[in-house]
Amino acid sequence: MAQKITIVKVGGKILESPDTLDQLLNDFAKLEGLKLLVHGGGRSATKLAEKLDIETKMVDGRRITDDAMLEVVTMVYGGLVNKKVVALLQALGVNALGVTGADLNLLLSDRRPVKTIDYGWVGDVKAVNDNMLAHLLKSGIVPVIAPLTHDGKGNMLNTNADTMAGETAKGCAKHFDVTLVFCFEKEGVLANENDDNSVIPTIDKQQYEKLKEDKIVIGGMIPKLDNAFATIDAGVNEVIITKASNLGDLTRGTHVIK
Amino acid sequence: MAQKITIVKVGGKILESPDTLDQLLNDFAKLEGLKLLVHGGGRSATKLAEKLDIETKMVDGRRITDDAMLEVVTMVYGGLVNKKVVALLQALGVNALGVTGADLNLLLSDRRPVKTIDYGWVGDVKAVNDNMLAHLLKSGIVPVIAPLTHDGKGNMLNTNADTMAGETAKGCAKHFDVTLVFCFEKEGVLANENDDNSVIPTIDKQQYEKLKEDKIVIGGMIPKLDNAFATIDAGVNEVIITKASNLGDLTRGTHVIK
Repeated sequence: MAQKITIVKVGGKILESPDTLDQLLNDFAKLEGLKLLVHGGGRSATKLAEKLDIETKMVDGRRITDDAMLEVVTMVYGGLVNKKVVALLQALGVNALGVTGADLNLLLSDRRPVKTIDYGWVGDVKAVNDNMLAHLLKSGIVPVIAPLTHDGKGNMLNTNADTMAGETAKGCAKHFDVTLVFCFEKEGVLANENDDNSVIPTIDKQQYEKLKEDKIVIGGMIPKLDNAFATIDAGVNEVIITKASNLGDLTRGTHVIK
Repeated sequence: MAQKITIVKVGGKILESPDTLDQLLNDFAKLEGLKLLVHGGGRSATKLAEKLDIETKMVDGRRITDDAMLEVVTMVYGGLVNKKVVALLQALGVNALGVTGADLNLLLSDRRPVKTIDYGWVGDVKAVNDNMLAHLLKSGIVPVIAPLTHDGKGNMLNTNADTMAGETAKGCAKHFDVTLVFCFEKEGVLANENDDNSVIPTIDKQQYEKLKEDKIVIGGMIPKLDNAFATIDAGVNEVIITKASNLGDLTRGTHVIK
């Protein structure tokens, strides 16, 4: 049977408050077996850009990444946030290795083609170096991945952290039994969006269709769940959508299964 | 017989001009056998600090690193410079992995104790994880090391790049036959400091004593050569002091040997 791995995606918001950061990393450190962390950092990037008088332009929640903004995100995601997390994990005894998709050619992207909008230096992942990832993991290394990839021509590319987590999970599924955990602000997928106690514990594909029909799952949850099912179709065992503060108890949250 | 490795230390100045950067990385890419790059980036850090209205304070050429400056160097060394180099090396077919001393606990430091001067978040290397380095190198990985270490308690530390190169070389000497190359602004150690054609091709310990007696080696070259001999005493085979543009021909420059 394949070894188990837990892949955790956590957004910048959690990483920016010392309290939530410490709790998250403590819970992450306690996860048994192989593991890997993918982080965001958008708020810190926006903050640094402001200080440098670089305007942050977003379209549909995606950052337009011109030359100056690429430097900002490379510094913030690949340097500031990534190395802070690595140093803290090392202090907790986790053998963390901070990387971007450029390191070891782990995630290769195409620069997003211009249709109506030029997103600039933004990458869409086209290949994951799953053999190298598996080699690192089997060596006892815990990769900490910043949301940056490269184009193979010498350029870094800003890349959505959720996408990176999904692609990394798909790559790992060729070698391991993968659980992908998306930490977000709510307890899970809620039957009643105003009631944190209404978490739907498990959703399979058939239930998902019904939940959409019944308008229980609506809005921003639909792309999240579509992505979850896409990674499951690509071999990931389970996707857990949960609150970051629940990382210590993965029986909670919503479990998306085949 | 032990495998050969070439460890190259290059300063920020070379990395900041696209022309010298491209030549350096092309020459580095062509080096045969195991290899490892240690880089600086002080000028870029000073530039970013200026833009952020953070004052750069230097004492004896060493940067005072307060909280704000630690964020700057972590971003610039660990993010901006390191990932630029990694992406460019990947484009040249080099399996580069950008790291700091915190990653994989590669270089552990003590925060420098305060005597007359408080350097702030500055580290003096106390341990090199030579087994992990050897494991990476034997896996065909080319580490690209930024001048940052950690204290094992969750903090990054700003660390002199020459020191990091020396300590890394000493660690590698436990596993490999090490050549350490210091790229600097002159052709090598010069018999006449105004004549770039007066490179002293080889210096052993006995010759070094004579060169000091005869006042041929003076000033800033003395600590450089003392450091070179210290790494040789710790098992490094050879230290080459040369111009960055000579990396393609390592028969040039000054070869410091036992």
